[in-house]
Amino acid sequence: MLGLEGQRLSGDDDGIIPVIGPNGVKVVSMEFLLKDPEHPIVWRGPIKMGAIRQFLTEVNWGDLDYLVIDLPPGTSDEPLSVAQTIKDAEGAIIVTTPQDVAILDITKSVNFARMLNMKVIGIVENMAGLECPHCHKQIDLFRLHGGQEAAKHLDVPFLGSLPIDPKVVIAGDEGTPFVESAPTSEVARAFRIVVENILKQVS
Amino acid sequence: MLGLEGQRLSGDDDGIIPVIGPNGVKVVSMEFLLKDPEHPIVWRGPIKMGAIRQFLTEVNWGDLDYLVIDLPPGTSDEPLSVAQTIKDAEGAIIVTTPQDVAILDITKSVNFARMLNMKVIGIVENMAGLECPHCHKQIDLFRLHGGQEAAKHLDVPFLGSLPIDPKVVIAGDEGTPFVESAPTSEVARAFRIVVENILKQVS
Repeated sequence: MLGLEGQRLSGDDDGIIPVIGPNGVKVVSMEFLLKDPEHPIVWRGPIKMGAIRQFLTEVNWGDLDYLVIDLPPGTSDEPLSVAQTIKDAEGAIIVTTPQDVAILDITKSVNFARMLNMKVIGIVENMAGLECPHCHKQIDLFRLHGGQEAAKHLDVPFLGSLPIDPKVVIAGDEGTPFVESAPTSEVARAFRIVVENILKQVS
Repeated sequence: MLGLEGQRLSGDDDGIIPVIGPNGVKVVSMEFLLKDPEHPIVWRGPIKMGAIRQFLTEVNWGDLDYLVIDLPPGTSDEPLSVAQTIKDAEGAIIVTTPQDVAILDITKSVNFARMLNMKVIGIVENMAGLECPHCHKQIDLFRLHGGQEAAKHLDVPFLGSLPIDPKVVIAGDEGTPFVESAPTSEVARAFRIVVENILKQVS
């Protein structure tokens, strides 16, 4: 989604050198260590934990504004390793679709963060409906406001709703941030609101 | 999604007794072991592996037509444990959305199954577009045919495409199978084709 397929990590005396993505963002991914992108990584928990620790401690990140760690869904090894390695993390951002069955999952994620004494920066509702590209009417794909109601119920900030837009899918496939390729779209506008709300919580 | 919230597992001399869901399907889930559904399960890989083994070996499943194991995305501990525990499994069904970035993930999953000598029953394309409920025109939400092309490229059967339908979301939230609540819908029709194609591969 960042257009970095086929990139490889290199290193020098100061550590692993991250790959540079769109707008100068520094990126490290397990993907960059693979010889063949079609080959799966079959690592059990403890080895994954070692890799996560290495990414956090042995990469020469330099001066960063923010370090964002994109984790798989759920409350398994990966978020646990991150929480245990970065004791002073600003907090966790929880992303959900708005339907009922997803809400129980985010409740678990919020309680998981609390068990680990990590602040919950807030909840983002993703795939929150879409506008029909033909008739421009609103379609509520996964119901609406589930994330917002969960945020209220769990007493954590609600950071905003992102509609679905096929442009985001295409931008992701092409490796271009959609906030640049479609800056005036509804989803880019919604995304900027989410970012502003996150900045309010972390500054 | 099966309307089994709050159910608990019990046991007798013959083992753990599965919960009975819609149409008599026997269900076992980690969820049924939790005292509080809002409480996350924070188990590292080896403990998860023990639970998976227990579900496979200590549940009194009785006579089954099929045992379906719904796994999280990716190629991590869970599918590895299942593949190592059930040596004679019929095979793996891989579900994907149709956009480019998902295709690389399913390529990994197919190669993962092959590494473990597990047959790939086929690929299902999920969320393959939707019909606008207002103007009834087709919306290609995540592009189309990516799963079909990947199946061809990887030389595994393509089992079919499932469109998105908000009725499926509502049926899932209500715990009713949508093939019963909306049997004449396009998605129920598409689902039956997928099932027929699976049966052809496993019989």
